[in-house]
Amino acid sequence: MLPESLCDRIGVVLISPRNPLNIGAAARAMANFGFRRLTVVTPYAPTWREARSAVGAPELLQEAKSTESLAEAVAKCTLVVGTGCLTYRKPEQPVVQLPDLATRVAEELARGGRIALVFGPEKHGLTRDDLSYCHIMVEIPTDSRQPSMNLGQAVAVCLYELATRVDSHPFHKERITAGPSAALRSAQDDRTAGTSGSLELLALLIEEAMLAAGYSPKGMQSANRHDVRLLLRRLSPNAKDLRRILGLFRRILWRIKRASASSTHPD
Amino acid sequence: MLPESLCDRIGVVLISPRNPLNIGAAARAMANFGFRRLTVVTPYAPTWREARSAVGAPELLQEAKSTESLAEAVAKCTLVVGTGCLTYRKPEQPVVQLPDLATRVAEELARGGRIALVFGPEKHGLTRDDLSYCHIMVEIPTDSRQPSMNLGQAVAVCLYELATRVDSHPFHKERITAGPSAALRSAQDDRTAGTSGSLELLALLIEEAMLAAGYSPKGMQSANRHDVRLLLRRLSPNAKDLRRILGLFRRILWRIKRASASSTHPD
Repeated sequence: MLPESLCDRIGVVLISPRNPLNIGAAARAMANFGFRRLTVVTPYAPTWREARSAVGAPELLQEAKSTESLAEAVAKCTLVVGTGCLTYRKPEQPVVQLPDLATRVAEELARGGRIALVFGPEKHGLTRDDLSYCHIMVEIPTDSRQPSMNLGQAVAVCLYELATRVDSHPFHKERITAGPSAALRSAQDDRTAGTSGSLELLALLIEEAMLAAGYSPKGMQSANRHDVRLLLRRLSPNAKDLRRILGLFRRILWRIKRASASSTHPD
Repeated sequence: MLPESLCDRIGVVLISPRNPLNIGAAARAMANFGFRRLTVVTPYAPTWREARSAVGAPELLQEAKSTESLAEAVAKCTLVVGTGCLTYRKPEQPVVQLPDLATRVAEELARGGRIALVFGPEKHGLTRDDLSYCHIMVEIPTDSRQPSMNLGQAVAVCLYELATRVDSHPFHKERITAGPSAALRSAQDDRTAGTSGSLELLALLIEEAMLAAGYSPKGMQSANRHDVRLLLRRLSPNAKDLRRILGLFRRILWRIKRASASSTHPD
């Protein structure tokens, strides 16, 4: 089992689950394996009410957050892991097999990061837009004749894997369980990946710069947004890099705006 | 994923499940991880009907067997693995943590054995009598504050572990996937554990011999039966041993009966 301090840096995000039983089952699996941070994105109100009022619902369900968007749900995370059946789609980010996920998660914990495991709705899984917030995709190795898992069972299998295998990597063990000291924190900025929220801030700034600079036609805006999101997650700049790049784009934007202001209103 | 020939030597046994959704969930997890042999012991008729007629029920549910007893369900198995939450009970057989089960299962497959994973009813799990048919107990490492798992999720987690980790033990790999040749089969009898059915046959014979020999008062019969069952599973005699011991007890019984016959009807 993972120590509590680590479990609390790994959250589960359910996007618009349809069946209250599945929310209950996901929460129960979390309680079974010692995880507590559950976020539900745009739940259907009756489903959400029913799940939370169910007899024997785990305590963490009462403390679960609900958000209006996936961006908001994962804003503080440095590694966003999409889950789902990859039989019918080819994801644009790296795919990790579930039995290999613990290594990646242990590394992220070792550098002080926060992780979100994201599960899509029962029917169709994560959308292309949801996926643009994911650094990696995890695949549960299943039989090609029946690849798609039940939501509650998929959550249970993923959390079992992390609970039993993350801490067993001796290479990371000491670094993981020791929290960052104050002296180390600044140096750690070099190693800590930027949060999903700060990547999103940068993406918006880049988008604004693209528009201001007349980089491409307006019709490309949505496709560009998608590509920039994925690009930033692939590059995974650290916290210090991010501050620098944000500063650069703020400056660029200011410059472009001043230039166009002076060209339309010459002083 | 495990090759089909191995999956078919690992069965799932559900004892009197109450909720048809749980039967469906167990069957779906089996299909997800490539397992096909499901046996349900003394199912409640309406539950069983409802589970099998559910929309989208995996094919293996149609082929599932139902039996009147656990003894019958596991008769052909050489390793019977009980599952359940051990927080409130101290089992009488060895306990294996789920992350270590693959090694034990790979060994059993390597010597040609058949394995059953046994899950008790939702409410109370396996009874003491059920447990007397189990060679080992497997424990899913869970949080002590919420140790008990949902049935469908427990099945999923156990099968995921076996599907992803049994075949990755290179030491056994070759021996496992190569089926036993005819020439080897006799020598293999030395390595193959007796089936649960043949152990049960021996247990009955021993019980008969105990009674015939006036070994202990009639009131002890049920306790003795329980102890003998567990003893035989702990000893785990191989197929050749078993034939020899069965022969010995048959002879003993015959001898006692003849002796008592001659003492009551002297010729």
